[in-house]
Amino acid sequence: MSDRIASETELIQTFLAPLAAGAPGAFGLLDDAALLPVPPDCDLVVTTDPIIAGVHFFVDDSPQDIAWKALAVNVSDLAAKGAAPLAYTLALAFPEAPERAWMARFAAGLQLAQQAFDCHLIGGDTDRTTGPFSIGVTAFGTTPKGRMVRRAGARAGDRIFVSGTLGEAALGLRLRRDPKLYEAAISARETRMFVDRYLRPRPRVDLIDALRTSARAALDISDGFVKDLTRLVGDNGATIAFSSLPISTSLRSILDHDTRVADLVLNGGDEYEVLAAVAPDAVAGFVAKARLAGVAVTDVGIVGASSGVTIIGADGQSMGTISAGYDHFAPGR
Amino acid sequence: MSDRIASETELIQTFLAPLAAGAPGAFGLLDDAALLPVPPDCDLVVTTDPIIAGVHFFVDDSPQDIAWKALAVNVSDLAAKGAAPLAYTLALAFPEAPERAWMARFAAGLQLAQQAFDCHLIGGDTDRTTGPFSIGVTAFGTTPKGRMVRRAGARAGDRIFVSGTLGEAALGLRLRRDPKLYEAAISARETRMFVDRYLRPRPRVDLIDALRTSARAALDISDGFVKDLTRLVGDNGATIAFSSLPISTSLRSILDHDTRVADLVLNGGDEYEVLAAVAPDAVAGFVAKARLAGVAVTDVGIVGASSGVTIIGADGQSMGTISAGYDHFAPGR
Repeated sequence: MSDRIASETELIQTFLAPLAAGAPGAFGLLDDAALLPVPPDCDLVVTTDPIIAGVHFFVDDSPQDIAWKALAVNVSDLAAKGAAPLAYTLALAFPEAPERAWMARFAAGLQLAQQAFDCHLIGGDTDRTTGPFSIGVTAFGTTPKGRMVRRAGARAGDRIFVSGTLGEAALGLRLRRDPKLYEAAISARETRMFVDRYLRPRPRVDLIDALRTSARAALDISDGFVKDLTRLVGDNGATIAFSSLPISTSLRSILDHDTRVADLVLNGGDEYEVLAAVAPDAVAGFVAKARLAGVAVTDVGIVGASSGVTIIGADGQSMGTISAGYDHFAPGR
Repeated sequence: MSDRIASETELIQTFLAPLAAGAPGAFGLLDDAALLPVPPDCDLVVTTDPIIAGVHFFVDDSPQDIAWKALAVNVSDLAAKGAAPLAYTLALAFPEAPERAWMARFAAGLQLAQQAFDCHLIGGDTDRTTGPFSIGVTAFGTTPKGRMVRRAGARAGDRIFVSGTLGEAALGLRLRRDPKLYEAAISARETRMFVDRYLRPRPRVDLIDALRTSARAALDISDGFVKDLTRLVGDNGATIAFSSLPISTSLRSILDHDTRVADLVLNGGDEYEVLAAVAPDAVAGFVAKARLAGVAVTDVGIVGASSGVTIIGADGQSMGTISAGYDHFAPGR
């Protein structure tokens, strides 16, 4: 006989209430709503990004990884806006009452994530569903008044920066499905590193200060570099050399082995790196602040003056086979 | 061939962006996060209550009704806390791309609800899921500073008030499944009225002022009168005469016909009426403000001095067969 949670009260009071311990406005999760204290000199930034088993994670991923990802993907949105995480709500839907041991590990993953990102659970809801397990996080962050970094606003001549390296999470997803896929090109340790990039996205909270002070516009890469770059530059467009993109040595080994991996660099989702447009006179400050924060940022090109994003390959030709990035409702999905 | 939505962009820009038109911080749903402006003399109250097809509504309910309910159940939580609705986020998960005509009606239902409750869409997310259609609303409201009405705080001697009438939404759910169930006792018009109570909950926003100024504690009835009363009175307990409960003439006709309907009055979920504890010296003011607001409130008893909620039947005996109210994870569900 399995050891399953017996009531919503047990689920909330035993496993979730400890996550709200540092937030007075959560009332120990014993009320129907929470109070969210916003400092008077701050703006409140809100984002919501649920994750669903079988869509955004594997049902047999470790509960710690699932919990981490649920919060991390939301914190990534906040960080790209220059917003410091403050709190979150959590709506859980389970196909059956979870086992106590599983739930304890899930709560431990949330605890780890909220400590890493410096925020607290303030409220939520639990349901049974006929569908897959899903986690609906709504996250709250703060910026100094008027300092939220918008998606819109990039201007012709701005430099385009991307944090970290590209393609690794998308490659990690492939290796999560088939760990031996690239065993001819990379080590088992490198395989685990890629899978970890997929399972445990690292939102760029360390870039918050650099973005607030120096970015004209920014967003996080969740639907693919090209698709999100198109959103960033809007009607201005951009022409980017593939060779300028930040690619790790390990990923380059695979790229040499299988050139189709270029598609993961350009269109892989789940990156959670930051894409930012920085005015020319702000570049030095942005780069210096990013360095101080220990985050690698790469200048990949310039915001153009006419619409359309073009990627130029090593042969000097446009890489014409770029897919459209992720869209949940595109025909054929 | 069906006329389905072709992309997330179409879904957001054609159907959802108009719902954000009155909220500057929503940025036309063209950013990854929203700004939520909180007036400086106010507290921000947050609640989240998703609804799932097959659990909280029928998949073939009208899209207007589904949309209304998704927002209404969240606004009900805010209203019971004395919080005036301000804004909401919306996370939609669809098993397949919705048809355009369906989506237009769904958006019309949200438009109607947000006009009725005076709030705006500020952000959200759309996904495909392998499970049923689900709608995750997180709603935001404001109270004057320090005036949120808590669930906790009722004291021995406080009067217990309930708004409206009990049992109708739960009866409406039964009649939604089987419209002919009580045709011997009620008219077809009454049947439709009960079903409407289930499909279109009316959150008690008109009671917000009375609750703020006069209630010591309050919550909305979502899991059944007895269960939510137990939450309201906490360790103090209460003894309530069944004959004191507000029951409509139509429901009483059915109760005369089938005494088991008493269970719906006591334990039916989805009521979205307000249950409040009011200090004796605040009763006159509460009743007067409720009357001015046009909301019927009934004094059903007194907060006790020892734990446990007891309902006394017409025979003077405790009604011993009370079920435990709704719990998603209770064994056997």
